[in-house]
Amino acid sequence: MTTSSVPHFQDELQQLKTRLLEMGGLAEDRVRTAVRALVERDAALVERVLAGDQPINQLHIEIDDRCFKLLALHQPMAVDLRAIMSAVKINTDLERVGDLAVNIGEAARRYLAHPAVKELIDIPRMADIAHTMLRDALDAYVRRDTVLAQTVLNRDDALDGLKTQVFRELLTYMLQDPHTIEPSLDLILVSRHLERIGDHATNIAEDVIFMVSARDVRHHIG
Amino acid sequence: MTTSSVPHFQDELQQLKTRLLEMGGLAEDRVRTAVRALVERDAALVERVLAGDQPINQLHIEIDDRCFKLLALHQPMAVDLRAIMSAVKINTDLERVGDLAVNIGEAARRYLAHPAVKELIDIPRMADIAHTMLRDALDAYVRRDTVLAQTVLNRDDALDGLKTQVFRELLTYMLQDPHTIEPSLDLILVSRHLERIGDHATNIAEDVIFMVSARDVRHHIG
Repeated sequence: MTTSSVPHFQDELQQLKTRLLEMGGLAEDRVRTAVRALVERDAALVERVLAGDQPINQLHIEIDDRCFKLLALHQPMAVDLRAIMSAVKINTDLERVGDLAVNIGEAARRYLAHPAVKELIDIPRMADIAHTMLRDALDAYVRRDTVLAQTVLNRDDALDGLKTQVFRELLTYMLQDPHTIEPSLDLILVSRHLERIGDHATNIAEDVIFMVSARDVRHHIG
Repeated sequence: MTTSSVPHFQDELQQLKTRLLEMGGLAEDRVRTAVRALVERDAALVERVLAGDQPINQLHIEIDDRCFKLLALHQPMAVDLRAIMSAVKINTDLERVGDLAVNIGEAARRYLAHPAVKELIDIPRMADIAHTMLRDALDAYVRRDTVLAQTVLNRDDALDGLKTQVFRELLTYMLQDPHTIEPSLDLILVSRHLERIGDHATNIAEDVIFMVSARDVRHHIG
């Protein structure tokens, strides 16, 4: 029995992908909102981010469940099996991105209790890069596009460079004025949370490459 | 065809569990060594941690491969299918723990470039807790022991409390003496890396609970 002969399998796989994209969209939105709340010093927006991770957590359970059912009912092979194994992992990555939005929100809440240390330039830039990496990684998954996945891997260095730049600049502030120590620490944490979002995008891109171009040993199984 | 009628499936599942335990042992060792290198200010030991994550990365690929083959060749159902889906996730968690050992090693390398800020008490304590959580979570997986898994979840608060304590104490040092700012930042990062190892143990414990006591909707499939 080949996978393609099972009715509805491809439809259900398509639905799974749609749900993953939806979850990715939710996670991205929350990160974007958390960073905007930080930059614009909008305390009400911070609280909205901190209150709202229920939809992502529900989707996380639903997607896991879809993967389980697809494996149990259709016993897919080769690239289809790898697509579902990848979906299990991507689902976990996206849930963690949602958690990182909460972490950014928590840092933003503490940050807003102090006067602003500086105008925030590099942090929104990091958020943009992380956001694009995540979106491209998910697009690469849906389209099974290893070239796009590879471009995601290449962008990780840009994020790392900005993180180092943020750190050095804030260290200078902290050394000059102890009042900036506590809020600067929160900005450093935010930059690390954003770097980790890039790491999750990287994980997803690596899964895509594994899914599409499995090594020989795997290929013979299907 | 039920899973149990397939020859060797249970043997191979057992081997998979053995490899996961081995990987968990390697990851724990590396974390333990990184923290010891930090506490004992042993620069050579730091470099050994930073050089040696190849065995974990190899095991990560091998375990993923075993999961893929078990799914493709045996098409397991119910609790066996959940055990393999959990193994895929646990494998990812353990690889990240290995990465965190590297992160701790990197922070230790920077920390050793400065005079010691203080005697380290809470950080080794955090490492012990994270270590025990990880070991118990893996034991719970192998023995399908939800009671033990639950105790892992309960210990997350202790780790969180110590992290906050480390932060407050180091903040006091930084405010009093700017020379301590840079090394203190690295200690704060180490405490956060250890907290994340606890998070990974928590993820594993949650997977065990899912694996053993799936919700009704899943139970009906097998």
